Amino acid sequence: MKSFIIYLKCSVCGEIFEHTQVQRFCQNCNAPLIAVYDYDAIRESVDRDSFKSRVSSMWRYFEFLPVIDEKNVISLGEGWTPLLKLKKFGSMLELDNLYLKDESFNPTLSFKARGLSCAVSKAFELGIEKIALPTAGNAGSALSAYCAKAGIKCFVSAPKDTPQLILKECEFYGAEVALVDGLISDAGKIVQSRSEFFDISTMKEPYRLQGKKTLGFEIVEQLGWEVPDWIIYPTGGGTGLIGIWLAIEEMIKSGLIEKKFPKMVAVQSSGCAPIVKAFKEGKERAEFWEDAKTIAYGLRVPKPFADRLILKIIRESGGFALEVEDEDMLKMMKQIAEFEGIFLCPEGSATAVAVEKLVSDGFVKREDVVVIFNTASGLKYL
Amino acid sequence: MKSFIIYLKCSVCGEIFEHTQVQRFCQNCNAPLIAVYDYDAIRESVDRDSFKSRVSSMWRYFEFLPVIDEKNVISLGEGWTPLLKLKKFGSMLELDNLYLKDESFNPTLSFKARGLSCAVSKAFELGIEKIALPTAGNAGSALSAYCAKAGIKCFVSAPKDTPQLILKECEFYGAEVALVDGLISDAGKIVQSRSEFFDISTMKEPYRLQGKKTLGFEIVEQLGWEVPDWIIYPTGGGTGLIGIWLAIEEMIKSGLIEKKFPKMVAVQSSGCAPIVKAFKEGKERAEFWEDAKTIAYGLRVPKPFADRLILKIIRESGGFALEVEDEDMLKMMKQIAEFEGIFLCPEGSATAVAVEKLVSDGFVKREDVVVIFNTASGLKYL
Repeated sequence: MKSFIIYLKCSVCGEIFEHTQVQRFCQNCNAPLIAVYDYDAIRESVDRDSFKSRVSSMWRYFEFLPVIDEKNVISLGEGWTPLLKLKKFGSMLELDNLYLKDESFNPTLSFKARGLSCAVSKAFELGIEKIALPTAGNAGSALSAYCAKAGIKCFVSAPKDTPQLILKECEFYGAEVALVDGLISDAGKIVQSRSEFFDISTMKEPYRLQGKKTLGFEIVEQLGWEVPDWIIYPTGGGTGLIGIWLAIEEMIKSGLIEKKFPKMVAVQSSGCAPIVKAFKEGKERAEFWEDAKTIAYGLRVPKPFADRLILKIIRESGGFALEVEDEDMLKMMKQIAEFEGIFLCPEGSATAVAVEKLVSDGFVKREDVVVIFNTASGLKYL
Repeated sequence: MKSFIIYLKCSVCGEIFEHTQVQRFCQNCNAPLIAVYDYDAIRESVDRDSFKSRVSSMWRYFEFLPVIDEKNVISLGEGWTPLLKLKKFGSMLELDNLYLKDESFNPTLSFKARGLSCAVSKAFELGIEKIALPTAGNAGSALSAYCAKAGIKCFVSAPKDTPQLILKECEFYGAEVALVDGLISDAGKIVQSRSEFFDISTMKEPYRLQGKKTLGFEIVEQLGWEVPDWIIYPTGGGTGLIGIWLAIEEMIKSGLIEKKFPKMVAVQSSGCAPIVKAFKEGKERAEFWEDAKTIAYGLRVPKPFADRLILKIIRESGGFALEVEDEDMLKMMKQIAEFEGIFLCPEGSATAVAVEKLVSDGFVKREDVVVIFNTASGLKYL
């Protein structure tokens, strides 16, 4: 298989960056870089059938991923997770086509595996030997595991109230862990102070986004190459939401699907809802959310680095930004466990609460194809 | 898709039992029942290519499974787990083809999902409304989840030192949980006293084995329809070991593969090794192992109900039964985490210890294709 990456491009000013060198973000715009591929060449090279007998991991979309040599792929079996039809919960909401993309079926039990498999693979290809990130939990486990496999030294910094299970997991993989009395933004400062490590923070390097993109490819392929009507996504750093949007654009550009976009809904906790606030106020950027508090650790991101991109995509898609209460997430976790036999994490549960709201407010219709997300195993939060 | 099941047969006396009625085991022989399929009809109906575009779950082998109507399948996305090549650990042992079947990529994070998806589906098809089992942990979680999805009442009994995380998980799915001051055999007595519940204990009903069988189909399909030289399996109740053997027999009978069998190695803990003892002493049956103690809860089965079958298969295959020390399992867990980025459970780690022994004793050769197993996520044991 062959990657068709051609370069990276600033998401704000459009400046071009080489993918053959180590890159982070556009320092002028303080904005993320987006990889660009040769979509005409991809169109010549693959069609829908090409993917049928490919590997059952996210690396089945190799043409759309940035690693040049297959030998550099650091894989633990990430991606190609089940898209489960929620029959009972769907029929309760009078929805005929409600799906859950269950990302707990990933190495280290969360969706973070996608971004980090991709970013660690590319870092390995570029010869990087030390990697660090600040984490609310799951990104730390995933980075620790991929670095162990790649033989790369790993440092993670996390708020001291991160679930113990996750911190033990990082250490078990051999990572160095530093706890901070604060939020992920404070953990970020610790990471910055350790400048010998390559900082692989959300959207501050280009390739985690490229791995997350595979979520979008998989959903569309698993729906028989149909684009859903609604993507209802729990939004902390927003990489998944942006990635799904990019995937759909890329599938259109390379002729895999007809032009159709889903409505994108960003779900946040009422205890930390900077994107919702900016969306409601019609602003292009989010403000720092003071005193962020939520049981959904992955949503406790006071100011996403990619705020402009997230808000732009939600608006372009005709979607929404919604906040839900922690209490409702907890109730929904129990309900989905007892109804559907699935142990959602709070972030995943937030998307189930959101779909219930969107139905009762009349936005989502019976026949709509709706995808919600379980971003990690709920067990990691017990 | 169509199931080609024709009947059930006692594994000792050969008596026939109907699959259209609720069955447990052969009361005369006190032995498990094995499902028999119409292999000639399967041969006419499918070939290797048939499976290529099937669902990415164990239900891709529907012809070889006992559920008649697809609508009765209770699925949470079980099976079709990755077969990961262990490059670093393999090269340390000088093995070119060492694979890990990573069963942590299953609903409720363990291999128990296979047997219980199958058995709960068949119970649902037969109209059973209440199901119970004694458990060392992971079977309890899996049963709880599948029963929740099926709308079946669930009761599990477990030793009181079962990991807290797993007990909480069962309760979260709505199961009733009873703890006992003893082993899984004592928990079994509690289950028997609740006679209003259908007892779905290991090998005491016919269909968990049928689900476990899919492990064998997957390994062979994932190796490009090649049978490995060695299957090194952690053996508590032994369902997986028997299932893999049956799968290979069935693939031969239905023309999917040429006749070849792997050497089967049953791995136990030195703190509970009834199969190893019987194997060494040349006996057909295992004796009850007094005072069983091991950190590998899944191996703490003092007397497997299917002892005769397990011992017969190991011997027929030219394999072994091996015991390993708990201490070595713990060391190996850390080593594999730091080397390969995989968090094995102690049972899985036992198979890694076993392969190391078999190499150093000269049994396993460099070019042999060897499969070891991670039966569950190590995280559940933290």
